[in-house]
Amino acid sequence: MITLKQQVFEANKDLPRYGLVTFTWGNVSAIDRHQGLVVIKPSGVAYDAMTVDDMVVLDTEGNIVDGKWRPSSDTATHLELYRRYPSLGGIVHTHSTHATAWAQAGLSIPALGTTHADYFLGNIPCTRALTQQEVEGEYELNTGKVIIETLAEQNPLHNPGVIVYQHGPFAWGKDAHDAVHNAVVLEEVARIAWIACGINPGLRHIEPYLMKKHFMRKHGPDACYGQK
Amino acid sequence: MITLKQQVFEANKDLPRYGLVTFTWGNVSAIDRHQGLVVIKPSGVAYDAMTVDDMVVLDTEGNIVDGKWRPSSDTATHLELYRRYPSLGGIVHTHSTHATAWAQAGLSIPALGTTHADYFLGNIPCTRALTQQEVEGEYELNTGKVIIETLAEQNPLHNPGVIVYQHGPFAWGKDAHDAVHNAVVLEEVARIAWIACGINPGLRHIEPYLMKKHFMRKHGPDACYGQK
Amino acid sequence: MITLKQQVFEANKDLPRYGLVTFTWGNVSAIDRHQGLVVIKPSGVAYDAMTVDDMVVLDTEGNIVDGKWRPSSDTATHLELYRRYPSLGGIVHTHSTHATAWAQAGLSIPALGTTHADYFLGNIPCTRALTQQEVEGEYELNTGKVIIETLAEQNPLHNPGVIVYQHGPFAWGKDAHDAVHNAVVLEEVARIAWIACGINPGLRHIEPYLMKKHFMRKHGPDACYGQK
Amino acid sequence: MITLKQQVFEANKDLPRYGLVTFTWGNVSAIDRHQGLVVIKPSGVAYDAMTVDDMVVLDTEGNIVDGKWRPSSDTATHLELYRRYPSLGGIVHTHSTHATAWAQAGLSIPALGTTHADYFLGNIPCTRALTQQEVEGEYELNTGKVIIETLAEQNPLHNPGVIVYQHGPFAWGKDAHDAVHNAVVLEEVARIAWIACGINPGLRHIEPYLMKKHFMRKHGPDACYGQK
Repeated sequence: MITLKQQVFEANKDLPRYGLVTFTWGNVSAIDRHQGLVVIKPSGVAYDAMTVDDMVVLDTEGNIVDGKWRPSSDTATHLELYRRYPSLGGIVHTHSTHATAWAQAGLSIPALGTTHADYFLGNIPCTRALTQQEVEGEYELNTGKVIIETLAEQNPLHNPGVIVYQHGPFAWGKDAHDAVHNAVVLEEVARIAWIACGINPGLRHIEPYLMKKHFMRKHGPDACYGQK
Repeated sequence: MITLKQQVFEANKDLPRYGLVTFTWGNVSAIDRHQGLVVIKPSGVAYDAMTVDDMVVLDTEGNIVDGKWRPSSDTATHLELYRRYPSLGGIVHTHSTHATAWAQAGLSIPALGTTHADYFLGNIPCTRALTQQEVEGEYELNTGKVIIETLAEQNPLHNPGVIVYQHGPFAWGKDAHDAVHNAVVLEEVARIAWIACGINPGLRHIEPYLMKKHFMRKHGPDACYGQK
Repeated sequence: MITLKQQVFEANKDLPRYGLVTFTWGNVSAIDRHQGLVVIKPSGVAYDAMTVDDMVVLDTEGNIVDGKWRPSSDTATHLELYRRYPSLGGIVHTHSTHATAWAQAGLSIPALGTTHADYFLGNIPCTRALTQQEVEGEYELNTGKVIIETLAEQNPLHNPGVIVYQHGPFAWGKDAHDAVHNAVVLEEVARIAWIACGINPGLRHIEPYLMKKHFMRKHGPDACYGQK
Repeated sequence: MITLKQQVFEANKDLPRYGLVTFTWGNVSAIDRHQGLVVIKPSGVAYDAMTVDDMVVLDTEGNIVDGKWRPSSDTATHLELYRRYPSLGGIVHTHSTHATAWAQAGLSIPALGTTHADYFLGNIPCTRALTQQEVEGEYELNTGKVIIETLAEQNPLHNPGVIVYQHGPFAWGKDAHDAVHNAVVLEEVARIAWIACGINPGLRHIEPYLMKKHFMRKHGPDACYGQK
């Protein structure tokens, strides 16, 4: 658990370092699948005052196992995603500027180029609006459910992020570090797409064969990017 | 007074730190309701040369009680707001880029997402234009009056900021630190709304039930955000 | 001269500090009216390698009086402005992003708010295109002439900057430091105006009485901004 | 080779310093024409962990001569350009934000002002889309070929960069340092053009005589910019 707490702590500290959060508007978690335990940032604690010991440890039903603070108010969303997708090791939520703008616009972030296709195999979908009942009920749990509904049968590691309508982005990965990496990509891709659509509103989606080439170059069985 | 001067000094220094001001284009004040005294930044003094002792202390009618400098030229606006709203403890004025752009556009900043709704329970209103008489008369006092006219019967802590037409934002809070916090939020929310409206000019306001959920999660009697 | 060289050196170093220049794309000069001497940045010297001794001293006809380098390639523009306007003490040229974008758009930067009116009493005009003859002849001198033609009978200290069509901004002031200050304002005002026009293409110019109020509050005979 | 490895290493480190890359999204190479050897960044190695010894040395056919890592996945593109253009000494590829947005928009970056014309003698062209066959075959080699097809008979040092459709910018120069310089210019020019086109969609290209004047002032036989 010490290692996982350290990883989650460092991943949380990376959020302001990459310019993804203002104040406390973001959180990172990670899961230890063996022990069935999740580590997450405490709610409303300032990033620069935060220490490893402030991290909260829960089981996947949300019972606190270790930690002196209340967990992030978005905890139920994280847990729902961990329960549904065994391949997820880390999850991030932020209100990063451009991804949040797309969420407010209510549109999926279109796959327009290789920067996008190096990480996401298709558009980054925007969820439907939650109903009044869903919001007034178990809101954070229902946020997790609508993300799952939106991903449908897709492999979550082939589309490692979603934007929640009128809210903001959730991203994930094989661990906390990877999840933050994907959150940075999601924000940068959202920013480039905004500018590109402004330059040419009639632009086209990336050619499917170019998207596949780039995604597979980094993530396929014969990946040639990076070092073996 | 020493504590309040220190608080106002630090809150003023936070303005350039958060990227809200160019040169001396901003000011923060705070009030001690017990003593009926207001502390405010001196006029036209550079942020990096400013010390605690440069802060100016006034009574709520604007008479200088302590300090070697003239107070901010916007002092009469601050005082009018303190007189009208007993719940205000701190006030900030800046020319932060995106909030000022909305003020120049003459439009209220629409409530489009949860980032907005975490702090503002509704649109951030833009005042009407001041008349020639109002500008040529007691301009700064009249700026305070038009802000009050714009807020009407709203709780100022439920809408902790307004943009003044063709001018820029005023924000406030329960103390100087809180006021600066809300000024940062106002600027970020203005920026996201600009981008979102550019992406989808036909976007919708946030659902009222989602706005209420988020505002109350942070500010309601049963707030679950942060630590008790 | 030592003092003026120091001032011009420091003002040039301020350009990258304020984010106004990429590489060597900018220059500041100042004039000693008593001695009739102008100090200007050398051409194409990197800002971080530059020292006070690299500054070039010229008379107002452009003859080098002191210095080991060639002066800025824009020197003839600076000199023409000093000759025409006795009130100018310092001049700046940059390719700052947003002011340059307005120059490329070929439009004057409209006076839309008090941020603008605190420094510029009216739109920031864009010059006409230079003719082929003017460009192929004494180009830099003709750039100075077209700036003068654009200002016409206006007081240059009431409109301390102009954008040159398809080129970029020139700004000035009572000394080198003041000129850089106005160049920073010009860039920020250009940025806000771009965003404001994007939010509401039908926005209105600032009310003339509000513009006058703000300009005079800072620059009029009864200025109340800052310390006496 | 030690000198060239050092130069390529430093030029690669400049990419994050100038804000041109996120993570490992970029690479710089340089060529020693005498020895016929190319030095390039290794694939997927983080910029802050990279050392001079991580650089990879290849011959112009792509055979590794020295180095412990796999070369950048874009190596075949670099080599094709070196083989075709004897004047090139260094090449850069990035996914810099605004240049990538133009690539996604599928439009050449129009020559709109002197900032552009100081470095590029004409529009910065966008390549055609690669066909499915070209992408599924020798993709990186074909990327080099389509850049060459796009430049056609132009002098590559008179148009030291191109944007590849739905991908991003390639820039070059007489050495690695110069190539990075041009990549910075390309990104800044792309950003200004985006803003300028937003301000005035009906804006005009730079007058040909003004473009020529500026390009020749810096690059012509009688260049008067900088120090001899």
